[in-house]
Amino acid sequence: MVNSDFSIRELRATKKVEELVKGMRWTAFSARRIGEAREILSEMVRPNGSFNFLGLAGAIVPSGLRSVIVNMIKKKWISVIVSSGANITHDLSMTFGAKHFQLKGQEDDSYLKKRGLCRIYDFCASNKGFVVLERRIRNLLKKIPEGQYGSYELLEMIGARVRDECSILRAAHEANVKILVPAFTDSILGLHVWMFSRFHSVKVDPFKDLNYILDLQFELKSRKAKTGAIILGGGVPKNFILQSSLFAGKPFDYAIQITTDRPEFGGLSGATLDEAKSWGKISRNAKICTIYCDATIALPILVSSIQG
Amino acid sequence: MVNSDFSIRELRATKKVEELVKGMRWTAFSARRIGEAREILSEMVRPNGSFNFLGLAGAIVPSGLRSVIVNMIKKKWISVIVSSGANITHDLSMTFGAKHFQLKGQEDDSYLKKRGLCRIYDFCASNKGFVVLERRIRNLLKKIPEGQYGSYELLEMIGARVRDECSILRAAHEANVKILVPAFTDSILGLHVWMFSRFHSVKVDPFKDLNYILDLQFELKSRKAKTGAIILGGGVPKNFILQSSLFAGKPFDYAIQITTDRPEFGGLSGATLDEAKSWGKISRNAKICTIYCDATIALPILVSSIQG
Amino acid sequence: MVNSDFSIRELRATKKVEELVKGMRWTAFSARRIGEAREILSEMVRPNGSFNFLGLAGAIVPSGLRSVIVNMIKKKWISVIVSSGANITHDLSMTFGAKHFQLKGQEDDSYLKKRGLCRIYDFCASNKGFVVLERRIRNLLKKIPEGQYGSYELLEMIGARVRDECSILRAAHEANVKILVPAFTDSILGLHVWMFSRFHSVKVDPFKDLNYILDLQFELKSRKAKTGAIILGGGVPKNFILQSSLFAGKPFDYAIQITTDRPEFGGLSGATLDEAKSWGKISRNAKICTIYCDATIALPILVSSIQG
Amino acid sequence: MVNSDFSIRELRATKKVEELVKGMRWTAFSARRIGEAREILSEMVRPNGSFNFLGLAGAIVPSGLRSVIVNMIKKKWISVIVSSGANITHDLSMTFGAKHFQLKGQEDDSYLKKRGLCRIYDFCASNKGFVVLERRIRNLLKKIPEGQYGSYELLEMIGARVRDECSILRAAHEANVKILVPAFTDSILGLHVWMFSRFHSVKVDPFKDLNYILDLQFELKSRKAKTGAIILGGGVPKNFILQSSLFAGKPFDYAIQITTDRPEFGGLSGATLDEAKSWGKISRNAKICTIYCDATIALPILVSSIQG
Repeated sequence: MVNSDFSIRELRATKKVEELVKGMRWTAFSARRIGEAREILSEMVRPNGSFNFLGLAGAIVPSGLRSVIVNMIKKKWISVIVSSGANITHDLSMTFGAKHFQLKGQEDDSYLKKRGLCRIYDFCASNKGFVVLERRIRNLLKKIPEGQYGSYELLEMIGARVRDECSILRAAHEANVKILVPAFTDSILGLHVWMFSRFHSVKVDPFKDLNYILDLQFELKSRKAKTGAIILGGGVPKNFILQSSLFAGKPFDYAIQITTDRPEFGGLSGATLDEAKSWGKISRNAKICTIYCDATIALPILVSSIQG
Repeated sequence: MVNSDFSIRELRATKKVEELVKGMRWTAFSARRIGEAREILSEMVRPNGSFNFLGLAGAIVPSGLRSVIVNMIKKKWISVIVSSGANITHDLSMTFGAKHFQLKGQEDDSYLKKRGLCRIYDFCASNKGFVVLERRIRNLLKKIPEGQYGSYELLEMIGARVRDECSILRAAHEANVKILVPAFTDSILGLHVWMFSRFHSVKVDPFKDLNYILDLQFELKSRKAKTGAIILGGGVPKNFILQSSLFAGKPFDYAIQITTDRPEFGGLSGATLDEAKSWGKISRNAKICTIYCDATIALPILVSSIQG
Repeated sequence: MVNSDFSIRELRATKKVEELVKGMRWTAFSARRIGEAREILSEMVRPNGSFNFLGLAGAIVPSGLRSVIVNMIKKKWISVIVSSGANITHDLSMTFGAKHFQLKGQEDDSYLKKRGLCRIYDFCASNKGFVVLERRIRNLLKKIPEGQYGSYELLEMIGARVRDECSILRAAHEANVKILVPAFTDSILGLHVWMFSRFHSVKVDPFKDLNYILDLQFELKSRKAKTGAIILGGGVPKNFILQSSLFAGKPFDYAIQITTDRPEFGGLSGATLDEAKSWGKISRNAKICTIYCDATIALPILVSSIQG
Repeated sequence: MVNSDFSIRELRATKKVEELVKGMRWTAFSARRIGEAREILSEMVRPNGSFNFLGLAGAIVPSGLRSVIVNMIKKKWISVIVSSGANITHDLSMTFGAKHFQLKGQEDDSYLKKRGLCRIYDFCASNKGFVVLERRIRNLLKKIPEGQYGSYELLEMIGARVRDECSILRAAHEANVKILVPAFTDSILGLHVWMFSRFHSVKVDPFKDLNYILDLQFELKSRKAKTGAIILGGGVPKNFILQSSLFAGKPFDYAIQITTDRPEFGGLSGATLDEAKSWGKISRNAKICTIYCDATIALPILVSSIQG
């Protein structure tokens, strides 16, 4: 056990992200984790690496990390995204010009309300952005053929009609990455589609999302492809990705989880990746790593450390 | 500001939950919060109190707290439940005889897998329970008329066909409490209904859930009813409840949140209830309280302190 | 492993703390932990149970939980206390009449400063209390014979001169419980004793604290007494207690830890009690339990559940 | 309030740490914090910046971040260090050849004990290292003139006798940085000095540490120097640094805190820096920033972003 190959080494400050993260590999605690995640992710994203699912929960997109996700999509690191509705709503909203503004931290929420500002911890979005969003979504939906769609189909059609280079929906469309939002109605975008559906025959059918992801898992199983999961934050995206591997009997070969939650309170968002092995969601011999850190710090560093 | 009415008082150990929690009201930190939540909840659940929504995320049901929820339903504290699919799946599974077993904490997850045991932090469920669940759900679904249902309609019909006195679905049926599961397909129950739907015409339509909850909010608004939210754990249930009040322009008058998440990482699950005021989800003058504590501790104590 | 003796049981709300906590024993997550801690603590404090050390960090005393600690001392549950200086300072300050006042949570800290109010999260202490404290400590110290004392000796002499029934120092004096403050100079009390020492020959010698606690551990070892540790919050008190058992080769037979910290970041405050086994601080077969919860909630419940 | 100067900007992955952290400045949550801390730290460490105190708690040194601290000392960023005893013990131990080894995470603690391995979360130290440490410390102490020393004096004399280029004690000696350990007896180093003191007249007097730091604060006040605090992890070092500014009436002009603790449970380790303003420990107009992140990630990134 006491093998000098695994001895802790002095980490040195350095100008290059890659070198810094490689050095972290031989330290302890969270720094070690980010170093290990880099090794695993490098293996996942190399040519003939694994087929990768990305779980997207938390306020990643409006926080300014949208471009980091787009970057991952463009580099073909990701093949399927499972997201909360809010992240996709914000992606669209930003595409339509909505801006978010840093707060100082002393603002009273009732005052913000009066000013038409909706707070997300340390920044806010303006109500006006939501008004524009509503109008633009309505216009987009009018161009879409009537029908009952999986969320991934509807989002694909929207992505095809969007021109913002920073947009996740656009990038996903171009890279043929499917985006699934299992709790589609649990978002402002979902509310707008629901309103539209009251007078038009456009609907979202979550069973089609299940069809898609389960067919995909069975197909990956039949061709013995390696699969990987990058899970940012837990929630529905984490469970939906893992239950697809459980159902198809195709446990993941790689998994990286970035979360600020913790195991001891028993919720899935904080559960270890080891726990998923007992369910058969992750393979016994999978390469796994959980980084207990705000994804706004850990994700850009991790991605930048494999800049190639 | 330095008003002796608000001075910290010595808390004394005592045999009665009610007395202990009342004493906590005049302490600090989390104990104070649970004392304040007791005052707010007492007001919410008294005759002509408020119309209350319960958000149910995390592994509350299988952890042994199912009866505490049932107790709240039977006492008419709750009128609508918005839940993760997992909690409802476990409610059904336990109704069909599944048992959960405490683990010692040293078990290897690959070993558990071999033994057919699926781990949830410090306990496990047997695979056999899931097999029984599948069969029993299938039998239940066969008795249900074909159609496209909101999750609340389907769960109502299931609750009516279940005989377990400890069941949330049963208790909700008897008390005419609706249970909505916005991310229905994100659960084992959802997977079974989806499988069934491939050969039978039974389907879940999440837009109907939106219809239901939004009509309800508009109706509560028109008759100027007071509304309250009890949010256990965040996730989709928290957002779905709060977006309904946002959309209807009917901010909550009361809100109690029990969470182990924290605000600083920006996700909704950890967001303060004050933040929801800036969005108009919670009223400017609402009585609100967040308890930062595992709900398995805070909820039974809170409920027991109002045993009446 | 799947033994029905360990199956999760439905927890029911109940008016009595003891019954509630006994019920929690058969649930999961933090509730289970508090139930298990109750069993262990019951064993520790029964006649001929164990010789128990209490570690006291965090703002336990000013938060209103002073009486809970006093209660534990009076019932002879505790034989030695290792505390942060702040908790003892607050004990004295409250004895001398200082009051703490709940804040609403919207107060600006610069404004509080102007008003002479010092904030501790959600309550404040008045500067005036600290002025009284200084005068009273000075008067007390004048009555103490000159000499170089262990912190436990000085605090014993102070406790003997204090008449407040709610005082920890007083109760400890009466019950012959020693209180050690290893970082004595890291507190307002320490600053006052240091100031006094500039003109009087009264001094605190931390090596005497080591003498005391190590002699004690060796004596406990020689008479094969069972030993237990109740650790609230980590910090110096946790380390000081555990290093004494390490040094003496007398690992603890029981340990209960209540903390809100977590293991993953590597600090001792969040470390598991299992980790202490690798160091020989806790016995291989010790009965141990960590409750991840704010002590202001967990401690009063735990103590009340063994009200006898 | 909605000023485009404060709008969130898209963060882009990039190879250079400085560029990445500068980009984070315009995002949200923890990434924004690290960006803001960079701006503040840049100001603190520029020529004629501020006189800076470093608080060192948690297992920073053995985790592999010793060289990052040494780097900060060599660059003259830091003038005084207040540390836990453990970090200084590990610095010495590593100087004397002790190595730490990464664990896989499945090891049983009783097994580690048998193998003579002491675990610190995800790595371990060998007992042999502690044996060497004892011998080497004893030899060092023999060379030191008898007397009663402040911890900073004793550590200075030890640092002068150590030749390891990676050593904090050595670097501090060379840069004339004083290291104070207020809870000196709460560490293995403290235990060894205590043992030595039983047969030799070498002693540690914590009142001398108070003399030193308070004289220093009064002197900084008299010459109106700007002062700054960099606080890693809370505990005694945080309190000791802040109480010195309180006592001297010389509130800090800058403060950066990296912690994984949180405010809601009331302990000082998790307290906001704003709270310290109400006490007068930090100036009303101070530039302050708290990063809620494991220091093993945040510190190396922060330091590397100002590599200059």
